[in-house]
Amino acid sequence: MSNVLRNRYQADLREIEFQLFEQAKLEEIFGGDGPFSAWDKESVQMVLQQAKQFAYDVTGPLNAFGDQQGCRVEDGRVKTPAGFQDAWNKMYELGLKSLAVPESLGGQSGPHALQVAVEEMLSGSNTAFNMYPGLAMGASDMLAAFGTPEQKGLYLPKMIAGQWGGTMCLTEAQAGSDVGAATTKALRQPDGRFKIVGTKVFITGGDHDLAENIVHMVLARIEGAPAGTKGLSLFIVPRVRVTKTGSLADFNDVTLGGIEHKLGIKGSATCVLNFGENDDCFGELMGGAENEGIKQMFHLMNTARLAVGVQGLALASSAYLSALSYARERKQGSSIEHFKDPQAPRVTIIHHPDIRRSLLEMKARVEGIRSLIVLIASHADRAAYYQGKDDEKVAYHKGQVELLTPIVKAYASDQAFRVAEIALQVHGGAGYIHDYGVEQDLRDSKIFSIYEGTNHIQAMDLVARKLGQKGGANTQALVGEIQAFCEAHREDPQLGPATALLATATEAVVGCVMRFMGWSAEGKLPLVALFANRFLELMSEAVVGYQLLKGASIAKAELAAGSDEKDFYQGKVHAALWFARNVLPTIPGRAEVAGNEDDSAMTISDESFATA
Amino acid sequence: MSNVLRNRYQADLREIEFQLFEQAKLEEIFGGDGPFSAWDKESVQMVLQQAKQFAYDVTGPLNAFGDQQGCRVEDGRVKTPAGFQDAWNKMYELGLKSLAVPESLGGQSGPHALQVAVEEMLSGSNTAFNMYPGLAMGASDMLAAFGTPEQKGLYLPKMIAGQWGGTMCLTEAQAGSDVGAATTKALRQPDGRFKIVGTKVFITGGDHDLAENIVHMVLARIEGAPAGTKGLSLFIVPRVRVTKTGSLADFNDVTLGGIEHKLGIKGSATCVLNFGENDDCFGELMGGAENEGIKQMFHLMNTARLAVGVQGLALASSAYLSALSYARERKQGSSIEHFKDPQAPRVTIIHHPDIRRSLLEMKARVEGIRSLIVLIASHADRAAYYQGKDDEKVAYHKGQVELLTPIVKAYASDQAFRVAEIALQVHGGAGYIHDYGVEQDLRDSKIFSIYEGTNHIQAMDLVARKLGQKGGANTQALVGEIQAFCEAHREDPQLGPATALLATATEAVVGCVMRFMGWSAEGKLPLVALFANRFLELMSEAVVGYQLLKGASIAKAELAAGSDEKDFYQGKVHAALWFARNVLPTIPGRAEVAGNEDDSAMTISDESFATA
Repeated sequence: MSNVLRNRYQADLREIEFQLFEQAKLEEIFGGDGPFSAWDKESVQMVLQQAKQFAYDVTGPLNAFGDQQGCRVEDGRVKTPAGFQDAWNKMYELGLKSLAVPESLGGQSGPHALQVAVEEMLSGSNTAFNMYPGLAMGASDMLAAFGTPEQKGLYLPKMIAGQWGGTMCLTEAQAGSDVGAATTKALRQPDGRFKIVGTKVFITGGDHDLAENIVHMVLARIEGAPAGTKGLSLFIVPRVRVTKTGSLADFNDVTLGGIEHKLGIKGSATCVLNFGENDDCFGELMGGAENEGIKQMFHLMNTARLAVGVQGLALASSAYLSALSYARERKQGSSIEHFKDPQAPRVTIIHHPDIRRSLLEMKARVEGIRSLIVLIASHADRAAYYQGKDDEKVAYHKGQVELLTPIVKAYASDQAFRVAEIALQVHGGAGYIHDYGVEQDLRDSKIFSIYEGTNHIQAMDLVARKLGQKGGANTQALVGEIQAFCEAHREDPQLGPATALLATATEAVVGCVMRFMGWSAEGKLPLVALFANRFLELMSEAVVGYQLLKGASIAKAELAAGSDEKDFYQGKVHAALWFARNVLPTIPGRAEVAGNEDDSAMTISDESFATA
Repeated sequence: MSNVLRNRYQADLREIEFQLFEQAKLEEIFGGDGPFSAWDKESVQMVLQQAKQFAYDVTGPLNAFGDQQGCRVEDGRVKTPAGFQDAWNKMYELGLKSLAVPESLGGQSGPHALQVAVEEMLSGSNTAFNMYPGLAMGASDMLAAFGTPEQKGLYLPKMIAGQWGGTMCLTEAQAGSDVGAATTKALRQPDGRFKIVGTKVFITGGDHDLAENIVHMVLARIEGAPAGTKGLSLFIVPRVRVTKTGSLADFNDVTLGGIEHKLGIKGSATCVLNFGENDDCFGELMGGAENEGIKQMFHLMNTARLAVGVQGLALASSAYLSALSYARERKQGSSIEHFKDPQAPRVTIIHHPDIRRSLLEMKARVEGIRSLIVLIASHADRAAYYQGKDDEKVAYHKGQVELLTPIVKAYASDQAFRVAEIALQVHGGAGYIHDYGVEQDLRDSKIFSIYEGTNHIQAMDLVARKLGQKGGANTQALVGEIQAFCEAHREDPQLGPATALLATATEAVVGCVMRFMGWSAEGKLPLVALFANRFLELMSEAVVGYQLLKGASIAKAELAAGSDEKDFYQGKVHAALWFARNVLPTIPGRAEVAGNEDDSAMTISDESFATA
């Protein structure tokens, strides 16, 4: 009702810097003759500060408003919420979207870990807004990787500068998770171009008013190409045609079929796009390569999936810090020690045990997924750093990126929703009304488990492909690290018992891996699919437990060395211990479930689900 | 975007009847000279059929529309969504809200279990709409229990007939969970009435246009009364004054301060109400009893909390059946056996293992909470049935109602949100848009964990009061029943292994109870509070596992006897086995967590939660 006290967006920059510098040791890859030679700790900090200011001043204040106003269609075009255009311009002026883009393409050749940290603040302050440049970035990454020199020259500079936007057009009404069922056609023209005919749905930023052109990356099937994913090619389809000199020409017959009305990210236009309704839509084949569309898409899937993980982290962190502010301000009830005395002074709710448990649980989960995300970005950066210098290290770091990608996408997105739910509950009735913003976090975050491959697709990717990749070498490397860490801290009076819990949990996860291998060997594919989601969660929690305890060991060393940031470092230790004592011990029991080999979901008849 | 295929509301009447007749054996208390002597199986079935038709034809079709239109304020009054007035009238004509009200008060003297089953369909088809009559029912229950004969005579008949509405006014801005902090004043008048002055917030149906008057039940403190809950009295405060003959007189100075904009239940007006802004608001003391307000409220708390549990069941069931319909219709991908063949025929998604797992998980959770809810309602009915005949049985049944109330309220409300989340995920991208309705189920259901006592308040009620009530007799009775069931089915080739899992889970729950007793004895109150929510979940799952397996044993007997409802009964067996094999085995590990006595949430400093 009242317009009180809506929590403004907050970012925990101290914790972000801890992850980058103290835990992921980003400085190790700066300087010298490496790809990040122009960067140092101070320049990273400066960018982070700038991004935080931008999120606080520009995108954050537009978040509730964009949700309320949403997008609308006027004269066949999408109108984004007021203020988005200004935010778009400022963001590109600041260069916040091109930090990890090579200088040769107009970017700043920074580490991915930095871009990821910046994305946390951009998405956390306004997920819906950040979808538009996010998709534009995805499209330009695609062009940078696979475009011909002419294609790159024509499109990239303007896309990277934000003058033109971009989209990814995969999904069709009958082809969602089953992308190979796409029926959009590409008809070969005498001049080498292709006529595109078809309808794509759920296209994020499929139309908007933020840029003068939108370059669509469209999956379509060239006449005569094979069925399924192998017959798909990728086409560059600008909304407005571009002349050879790069100026805008005439309209390319890409029309807006409508926009969806959604649970959340309402400021982001989710579009139906019709290509070639008037038989006048032309596309260029990406890189001139036929039937390579899925390979090209998948090449960039890791980045896209990591981006969703970052969105999850972003809203989880924002929801947590909102709940923390609320708990520090809101008075209700007396302390548990005086619960029988009606005259006892009212206290802020942060004094109540269940609120503290909720806060510490959120803190542990948020810092756990942040740590996971910075870890994977740092693996990607190290793979780039060692490129051409140390093949073994490159293989190791790339392998970890492969292995961790489905974990980051699915676990971080599920946790975002879970953390937002806890944050809402901390707010009580106030959490259920629009005024405090946390209900928007909950709504916005729900899409993360669905798009860029549903979380079940991630789980199947993990169990059916990633665990066994390179003969299981990536998995073994990760498990080995966790075991070595447990071994190294076994005698620590504070962390020792927690690492023992981690060791037991990890054993249980390894036991599950063995079981999956057995099932695969015996052709029990349905069992693999039935347990995949739960396995992904178990493995994620073991890795998060490891990352948190690693952080705690670093924090302990700082405390032992007499750091004057006692509050900060003790918080790290508490969060890790909470997670170790409250989450890790549940893993063995949950892993044992797999041992029951329950296939009741397969043996039940379709009719038995409900006969009403 | 498109207005396709929104799933209409569905109720599983066959399963509801299974719970009422086959599992709760409702017929045992019909006929004879008992309170339900006028009822038989056929009359119950007739009412259920009527309620289902009403939900399908009247409230169901208004659900999405009410969500979209919401409530609005016009000239200081709440306007409910179009169609609500008509639904209100029809529902009262059908007598659907007075099934369990004594005939002497204008009701039908039916069992609570029947009213609960009807409420499932009313709430499931339109939660927001059903809030208005729900609160009116709560207020009239209150009057029936505590009003003077004059008060009952004046208000009850019109409230039970739906001519007048009613509300419960507890919460104030500074007094939510801490209801004893209420500052609304009651000033004694020479004529025995009281002037009421204060502002109440979050008042469901605080104003609306469905009835000609609204009778508010207002907690206020008489001048000079003690602080805290003990000084609160309950007042009957009609919006429009009522003459001694029951006709409407002048306006009673109860004004609308505004309505909240909420995540869900948007068709339900959540109001700020100002009492006595012009010093002209009068109330009557409920039953003429001073400082009895909290006792009076708490007397009916069980009913109110059960009602929230029913709301949870209602949306969980609706969301499940929507997802099931979607899974049976939506084609996507090929069967897992042919996943490498792009030419393999597309199948409906119910063929995919993870979709089947999702459906069976939802089915088990929904039927588990339905079973729990019918169980508690049936305990209440049996307590009434044995009243004056068998004191021991009355005490037993009343004791089970006490023990199960916090479980039903908290577990069913949490599960509703969880099931809606799974149902949304089954829909994929379609679940995230308004068209399919499941996102509304998710939004609507989130309030259930907050109102009528947050779920942490329920958990504290369970561990700090209910477990030890009557020296632990209620708890022991329930545990004893579960153990006897396990013993009786130990040798069953199909249910035996499942009951073994139940026995182990129950042991773990009992272990937790012992631990809580130890903590209480040692004064470790914060540990009790820190683990309370998780204990409630563990205990709920053990009881649900028991109820499901009991249902399965009944179903097995029917199958063995050659029933021709094979699909239905096999579904019951599958759901129980799924729950037993997938949920029960996780209980011991989750219970062990308590053994770590982790108090990191208490020892962390307030500053350490975040230093940014």
